[in-house]
Amino acid sequence: MLHNWQSIPGGITAPRGFLAAGITAGLKVSGAPDLALLVAPEDSVCTGTFTSSVVRAACVDLCADRLRATAGRVRAVLINSGQANACTGERGLLDSQQATHALAAQLGLRDQQVLIASTGVIGVPIPMSTLLSGLEPLVAGLSPAGAEAAAGAILTTDLVEKQIAVEADLAGRRVRIGGMAKGSGMIHPDMATMLGFISCDAGIEPSLWQGMVQRAVARSFNAITVDGDTSTNDTLLAFSAGEPLQPQHFSALEQGLTSVAQSLARAIARDGEGATCLIEVQVEGSANEAEALRIARTVCGSSLVKTAVHGRDPNWGRIVAAAGRAGVRFEPELVALWLGTHQLMAHGQPLSFDRSAASQYMQDRAAGEYLIDDTVVIRLRVGDGPGAALAWGCDLSDQYVRINADYTT
Amino acid sequence: MLHNWQSIPGGITAPRGFLAAGITAGLKVSGAPDLALLVAPEDSVCTGTFTSSVVRAACVDLCADRLRATAGRVRAVLINSGQANACTGERGLLDSQQATHALAAQLGLRDQQVLIASTGVIGVPIPMSTLLSGLEPLVAGLSPAGAEAAAGAILTTDLVEKQIAVEADLAGRRVRIGGMAKGSGMIHPDMATMLGFISCDAGIEPSLWQGMVQRAVARSFNAITVDGDTSTNDTLLAFSAGEPLQPQHFSALEQGLTSVAQSLARAIARDGEGATCLIEVQVEGSANEAEALRIARTVCGSSLVKTAVHGRDPNWGRIVAAAGRAGVRFEPELVALWLGTHQLMAHGQPLSFDRSAASQYMQDRAAGEYLIDDTVVIRLRVGDGPGAALAWGCDLSDQYVRINADYTT
Repeated sequence: MLHNWQSIPGGITAPRGFLAAGITAGLKVSGAPDLALLVAPEDSVCTGTFTSSVVRAACVDLCADRLRATAGRVRAVLINSGQANACTGERGLLDSQQATHALAAQLGLRDQQVLIASTGVIGVPIPMSTLLSGLEPLVAGLSPAGAEAAAGAILTTDLVEKQIAVEADLAGRRVRIGGMAKGSGMIHPDMATMLGFISCDAGIEPSLWQGMVQRAVARSFNAITVDGDTSTNDTLLAFSAGEPLQPQHFSALEQGLTSVAQSLARAIARDGEGATCLIEVQVEGSANEAEALRIARTVCGSSLVKTAVHGRDPNWGRIVAAAGRAGVRFEPELVALWLGTHQLMAHGQPLSFDRSAASQYMQDRAAGEYLIDDTVVIRLRVGDGPGAALAWGCDLSDQYVRINADYTT
Repeated sequence: MLHNWQSIPGGITAPRGFLAAGITAGLKVSGAPDLALLVAPEDSVCTGTFTSSVVRAACVDLCADRLRATAGRVRAVLINSGQANACTGERGLLDSQQATHALAAQLGLRDQQVLIASTGVIGVPIPMSTLLSGLEPLVAGLSPAGAEAAAGAILTTDLVEKQIAVEADLAGRRVRIGGMAKGSGMIHPDMATMLGFISCDAGIEPSLWQGMVQRAVARSFNAITVDGDTSTNDTLLAFSAGEPLQPQHFSALEQGLTSVAQSLARAIARDGEGATCLIEVQVEGSANEAEALRIARTVCGSSLVKTAVHGRDPNWGRIVAAAGRAGVRFEPELVALWLGTHQLMAHGQPLSFDRSAASQYMQDRAAGEYLIDDTVVIRLRVGDGPGAALAWGCDLSDQYVRINADYTT
């Protein structure tokens, strides 16, 4: 399926012409890296998708406004971790403007060409003098090898860095797509943000690129279930730059883009607090993709399914009950269900299956290598329709509750 | 507000003419009571609301069909606990029909006048010979004092019985409303059901009664957040019987009905697995009641809010973030938030408040008497509109995860 896209090193700066940097400016009390910068080539085009929350951070407003005003012709993104700059009122917007203004001056760009994304504690202003004095060393650190540093500096409660790059030969031309992200499968209390950044060194007409990115996001970041869909700061920015690509390769490019986005999204879901495995729900046979996605997300987000997987319990009843309440019509008598290769249901009724083998299947996944073989696959057929979709989540452990109950006080 | 409705003993059989019974038929392996019966007076009218799940049990289909066919002129409900009779295919429907047929014969009613509600394990047929041999002692046990036995026999994983009765003087006439329910704030794995039954000894024209019941359900059973809204068997049946009530008392009657429904719904939310308190979310200032309810339910259902309350953490950020993603437009700058009497936010920004006092407020509630003073109240103002609504839930503890992860295997 995946054309000929190969995984390569280099992350967000693997595509030609992209520079990145990441430093410790002192925004986090922990002393971990907290300021990152991504600079795109001169001819780049950027498209963004943002949180649908009514309560959204100042930086999200700034990004949306500038992308609109420049028709996507922005060149740089500053990312600070430590403070989300949400619920900070008028001051929050002024701080975002000041930070991008100072950075634009150093990069020789117009203010409108510079974006900012913030993640961290809600309701606390960014210590601006700390951020501003970090800009010079940050710009000085810009490098085509800066992906690793940038990917580290955008993290908050994440356990691991999330970056990827892929490459394909499209009619003799090497095209690369890179990405980095931050976020946990269970959104952290006051660090409630998912950020994603994608770079690509094939030029695409802006409206086409936007369509590709939107479809890729629907099949990746919007197909993972976090603690409630969207936070105050969720942002995805995707840059495309370089020699224009021929139309016959658009489909291949979209495959690569989708695969990069899915890889990052799966890594976010897997990095859930207290999680021991990734859950992939495959739904097929619905009327269309949107309905399949709705069912898949509902199953993935069910606390009862998540605790069952954590308990290695092949509990088909919880899965089919979650599917039934997804708000999608289907014929219960056509339902078939598999856990890995173990079929649990046919024609809407439970089969007699080997419970201990099905349980062991989940146990083996939980003991698997991180991001290698730690995916519990739930496959649900709901009819004979052409609709199919994937969604990802993670199991729910008692450790999740302890982490979130004990936080802050 | 509550007119002059007074709490009285007697539960579902407090209203005149209603009979109930509850016995141990042997359907549960535990040996706990498992078969209940409610019989309404001859002139009674019944209205029902049912699960919106696509995957629904045979008994739900039977109830909906017979209520339609008789225009609500049904007389009796058989309730078995132990087996939900969901995902049992054709056999499930035949079993429901056979059970009601046998009961109708013993009660001297037509099959169409008898309903059945089931709760328990999904995918397992009801042991029919056990159920059928229980009908004779069940009918023999019918009594105007049978509410207690019935309320006990409909439980599955509930920790406490849920019943109530209220009485008011409406222009010299004593009107009574009774109710009983089963269900846990966190729906139990394969016992995924909420059942509710309401009785009233004031006669109301069927379409008026239906409207009252629907509004009362929207403000009670549909305002509690369980593990995902609806199960395969969720059923509420409300009977009204007796001397017709004068129109000037309709509003008072609806108040009483709503209060009975809210009392049962709150008890269900409070009885969540591992819960230590009830959470009541009060939303005001939205454009209308529906939008307020949507916000209130989203806050109540947020895992992060639930774990924060469990951790006695006055985490305003999680509350406002949940409100923001409810899918309702509001002005973030108008948001004000209280936890009990402690104000945490004004004008969309955090106030400096006494964290330890706010935390203690929650701690005191958790240590409170069951159903007396164990309610943590979150009040959220989202604007200046006339919309207001309440929703209820419970805190999320690590014990919840252990209960649900360890179940069945």
